[in-house]
This record gives sequence, structure tokens and C-alpha cells, in this order.
Amino acid sequence: MTDAPITRGLEGVVVTESELSYIDGTKGILIYRGYPIEELAEKSSFEEVLYLLWYGELPDEKTLAEFSDNLSSNRELPVGALKVIVELADQGETPMAALRTIVSMLSGYESNTKHPIDPTLVLQQGVYITAKMPTILAAFDRVRNGEEIIPPRKNLSHAANFLYMLTGEEPDETKTNTFDTALILHCDHGINASTFAARVTVSTLSDLHSAITSAIGTLAGPLHGGANQRVMMMLLEIDASNHDPITWVKEHIENGNKIPGFGHRVYKTKDPRATILGDMSEELGAAAGDRRWHEYSISIENYLGQEKGLSANVDFYSASAYYQMGIPIDLYTPIFAISRIGGWVGHVIEQYSENRLIRPRANYTGPLELKYLPINKR
Amino acid sequence: MTDAPITRGLEGVVVTESELSYIDGTKGILIYRGYPIEELAEKSSFEEVLYLLWYGELPDEKTLAEFSDNLSSNRELPVGALKVIVELADQGETPMAALRTIVSMLSGYESNTKHPIDPTLVLQQGVYITAKMPTILAAFDRVRNGEEIIPPRKNLSHAANFLYMLTGEEPDETKTNTFDTALILHCDHGINASTFAARVTVSTLSDLHSAITSAIGTLAGPLHGGANQRVMMMLLEIDASNHDPITWVKEHIENGNKIPGFGHRVYKTKDPRATILGDMSEELGAAAGDRRWHEYSISIENYLGQEKGLSANVDFYSASAYYQMGIPIDLYTPIFAISRIGGWVGHVIEQYSENRLIRPRANYTGPLELKYLPINKR
Repeated sequence: MTDAPITRGLEGVVVTESELSYIDGTKGILIYRGYPIEELAEKSSFEEVLYLLWYGELPDEKTLAEFSDNLSSNRELPVGALKVIVELADQGETPMAALRTIVSMLSGYESNTKHPIDPTLVLQQGVYITAKMPTILAAFDRVRNGEEIIPPRKNLSHAANFLYMLTGEEPDETKTNTFDTALILHCDHGINASTFAARVTVSTLSDLHSAITSAIGTLAGPLHGGANQRVMMMLLEIDASNHDPITWVKEHIENGNKIPGFGHRVYKTKDPRATILGDMSEELGAAAGDRRWHEYSISIENYLGQEKGLSANVDFYSASAYYQMGIPIDLYTPIFAISRIGGWVGHVIEQYSENRLIRPRANYTGPLELKYLPINKR
Repeated sequence: MTDAPITRGLEGVVVTESELSYIDGTKGILIYRGYPIEELAEKSSFEEVLYLLWYGELPDEKTLAEFSDNLSSNRELPVGALKVIVELADQGETPMAALRTIVSMLSGYESNTKHPIDPTLVLQQGVYITAKMPTILAAFDRVRNGEEIIPPRKNLSHAANFLYMLTGEEPDETKTNTFDTALILHCDHGINASTFAARVTVSTLSDLHSAITSAIGTLAGPLHGGANQRVMMMLLEIDASNHDPITWVKEHIENGNKIPGFGHRVYKTKDPRATILGDMSEELGAAAGDRRWHEYSISIENYLGQEKGLSANVDFYSASAYYQMGIPIDLYTPIFAISRIGGWVGHVIEQYSENRLIRPRANYTGPLELKYLPINKR
């Protein structure tokens, strides 16, 4: 029997060094490899941020063109995977679980999984999976709605191509930019639970497909990626209730419920990603002439900030932004995944480069020295 | 910038309490819920051990009969899953990755995944997955060999039914008992990496299918479940080399390689599971009149024990035991999974019952305050 202190949730425990992202939770700062998130959100593209996270520096024009071309050339899915998408949609599977299953399945079409660890091969696998995830998601959504699957187009950006495959229409610049920015904002965030799951998986020297499959399954939970869907459900409930948002939130809290989209293990102040997404959500509302969703959000944020000292996190404003872009609510969490893949791949490469098997301990609290009785004597 | 101490690999860090298994690595003791592993291996069955781990006590006759019946009634796979098994076998996928993909896919046929956390539903999902894993593996192996899939039989034990589906022949008592014992021995082992991955996954309140998918992907690595396959590859190389095993091992170490099946994060002495599996391996060799594999193993174990102070772990003797039962080498690790599912489900239930999001930290070692240059200025 051991009685070492328990650090449930590993709060404050440092498991590794990382060069990918820096978070100052007190000041509300998020940096990817030296660059503030605000600057990347404004000036960069998702493709460029992927390159930055994976290779450690911003690409020049030629390098970015080659990298983007590699990504856009890998968007098509094998026929076998498309068949499983149809089967899963027929079964009423959730899009997040479908994404997990198809990403897992794709290792069967990738001979490189037999050589994990080699960073060049891992990066190519990263391109392969990253390029295909939006295709999986868009195809799944269309099949379940009884619509034709729209094949990817090579001449669109990662963000624009996803919206095109989802809706069948080439998105306008505002939608493309908003979605691209959302992908940048969600791309990496230290050792969050899904990233940690990816690292635990490859700490046995397992492969990238296994790591990303673990990460998707972990992101699916309501305490992690699932929160943005719950924010939108709340806003819709408020809208349907004809109540003032603050009244609704007060009642909800009095009934012992938590408000999704608030509070964070790391941030003690407003999540900088929430600020950017909040502005985008406001612009989308203004453009559509329907400011409701943003107004509800602002009321709730002000109320919880003043009364409870709670700050909005990344999930709080991504909800209304995606909703105003016409994206189905249960795609919000898988969209988080098609962005966070950038961080997952970067962390897997870091984990391989200085690996140590991640194996903590438990304190045993069960009985000792029980006597085994034959079954007829029990 | 933080500079908290790094506990890479989380060695010695206690993340939770657990009532499932107790390991004394110094004395070489392993206990499941109060019962020494030696007693369970000798007197119990895999079904009984599953019940013990999941419900906390040994079942009486009626309870065990109901539990076993529930398991054997859930062995059949949906047609959609069988089709994917054929597709993956055609693609040359590994059995371990195929197992990961099909277990992930099965959530599409399980409406209960929408209500994780409820222990009754989680236990029924545990039965559902545990019952189907052997069917997946046997079907995959037969399809890739161009053989007909053999449907499960309800009137065989979990161990006997797997061997029957794999070979098409009802196994004799020795094989059944050996395999049943191997399943018992691998069933739980504290917070090993795959179990920890399952716990990280559900710490976001994600579902059991996600957790088991993460765990399978984590077990796949050569530093965890993959080791038993590498032990057998070594024994086969030694046999083919016509060298004395000790000479071979010496050379291998001099060339900077590690010997698989030795050393363990927790055990500082001989793994008690290795003792039991070693005896079984010896008996199988004696019965077959071919003591080679056991003799090689004993030589290596004695040499490494005396010269290097290294002790054999569970993987070292499971290799030759499975080989002598005629099981294909690349099924050893997935067989580990079809046993360890018992521990995974038990740990998931424990994690739900006292959950805290598992989210450690990293020390950031990258640059700060870089200036973003427009792409044409780089």
C-alpha cells in the first residue's frame, strides 16, 4: 500500500517541454512558436500556421505553395472509406465518432504507419490525415442529409474547400476568412486533454493514426471539444424561451447547472481566442442583420464576469460564429478536430523526439489477502 | 515562462486511487481486488475475473451463468463491420489497427454511447465490446488467409470460442486452459499506458468506445503490448541463426539493442505473470515434444538475470506460449487487448465515478515575441 499524494487531473504537473505554444493564463496570452495568436489570426492562413507548428518557422512563398499543394493533393478519400461513411450515416452515428472511425481506418491505406518515429514520414502522414479530415466530415454530413457527396477541389484553400464540400457552394470571402481564422485559433493549446492523449498513445512508440484516433475520442467529451455544441444549445434554448438571457442563466445556475463556454483550467482571465471569435461573431450578425446571437452572448458574458468572476473561453464565441455561418451544431466539435490536428501532429513529433513511456501510478484502495472460495461455496 | 520540475513519463506520479489491482513491484506481487493472481490463474476463469474486476466481488453460480450468457450472446458482429474487416484485410492492414478501427466503428451500432457515465450502461457496453473483440480478430485473421469466417458459438467459453473461431476446430482442454489463463493474467495491471489513455479519454466525459479505441492504439506500441511479438521474433531469429541463445543475446546487446521482454517500470523483480506463463510454456513444449522455445527462453532469462540484473516480464513467456499454441505472431498484441479490455472497462467506470479532467502542463521552451513578416519579406 502506498500513500503518495494524488494529483487528480494532473493539475499543475509538468510532463514535458514543448516549443509549440505558450499560454499565459493570467495575462490572457497565447503564442504559437513565438507569434501572438492575434497576429496570426489577422495575417496568416491555416496552411501557414500548420507549417509553422510542424516545421518551427514561417514558410516563404515557394515553400508554402508546395506545402499547400501537398495538402490539397491529399484530400480525396479511398472508396472503401466512403462506403463506411455511408454505413455509419445509415446507422445514425454521430459525426465525431464517424471522424474517429474513418481516421482510424485510413491507416489501412498508409504503408508508412509501419515506420512511426521517422519525422519525415510522420509529417507526410500528418498531411495525409489533415487533408482528409474535412472531406470525411463534409461527406458524412451530406450523406446523412440524403445529399450527393461533393468531391474536394484542389484550387481552394483548406477553409474554403471544406465549406464548399459541405454546402456545394463556393463560400464568399467573409465566410472563408472567418472559418480560416477559427481553424487558426483552435490549432494548438499546450497539453490539453486530447493532445495529452495523443502523446500518451505515441509514448509506447505507437503510430500517428493511433494517436489522432485517441485525440479525436478525447476531444469528443463535453468537458473538452464538446463544449461549443452545448453553448449553442443554450443560446437556442434562451431564444426559444423568450426570457432575458440573464434570467435564463440565473435560473440555470440556481438549478445546479454549469454554463458551458466559461472557465478554463489554464486561463484565469478572458481567453484571447474568445475575444477574436467574439468580434467575428458580431460581424457575422451585423452582415446578416440579426444581432440576436451575439447580443445574448454579450449579456451572458457580462453577467457571469461581473457576478461570478467567470471568463468566456474559446468555445463560447465559436458557437455563435459557426451557427451564423449555417454550420450544423453537431459539426462544431469535429471542426475543432480538423483544426487541432495541427497541434496533435506537432506534439506527436515532439514526443517521439524525446520519448519516455507515460505511465503514472494509482494508490490501491481495495482489499488485500481475500480468500478465494470455490463458486459453490459463495 | 515557467520552470516547474518536469516529470517526464509521469514516473512515480499518482493520478488516482484504484480498487482494481495492486502491484508490489519489489516483492513481485499482483492482486486483483484482493485475490492473488496465482490463485485466480489456477482456479478462476476469464469470465469470472471480468465479473470480479467490474463488479468488485466474485460471482455466485447463478450470477456467473447470467454474466457469461450475456457475453456469449453478444459475440456476433454487424454485417457492416464484417464488410470493413474484409476491406481492411484486402488493404493489408495490421490486425491491431483493424481491431482499433472496428471497435471504433461499433459505436455506430450502440445507441447507449449517447449516455456515457451511467455505470449500468457502461457495463453493458463493456460486455458488448468485450464479447465482440475476439470475433473481430478471428474473422480478420481468417479473411486475410483467404479462409471462411467462422461464426461464434454460444456454448463455448470466451477462451475456447476464440480458438474455435480462429482455427475452425474446438480446442482441447490444455489449449483452452492455457489461453484462458493467459487472458486472466493480462486482464489488469494498474495505470499502465493503455489504461491511462482510456482514463484520459473519458476524463473529458467522452464515451467507452472512444476510451477503448484510445487504449488499443496505445497498447499497439512496441514499448507496451507490442513487446510480446518482438520476443517471438527474437526467439525465431535465434533458432534460425543456429547460435547459442546467450551468444546471440550478447551480440545483440553489444550492438546497442535492447532485449524485448525484460525490465518493467513497476517490477524490480520477476513479474509473477511471467512465472505462471513460463510454466505453461514449458508444459506446452513438453506436450509437443519440442522443448526448444522454452529452453531458449530459460537460457536468456538466466543469463540476463545473472549478468545484467534484468527480470523477465509478462511478454517474455506469453510469446513462446502463444507460438506453441499455433497462434500467428502478429495476433499476440491484439490478444493482449482482448484480455486487457477487462481492466480498461473497470478503470473507465472508476474514472467516471470520481472524474477530474486530466490536463497536465508543458514548460514552453520556444521563442517569444517574434515579429511576423509578410510572406514576400521572408
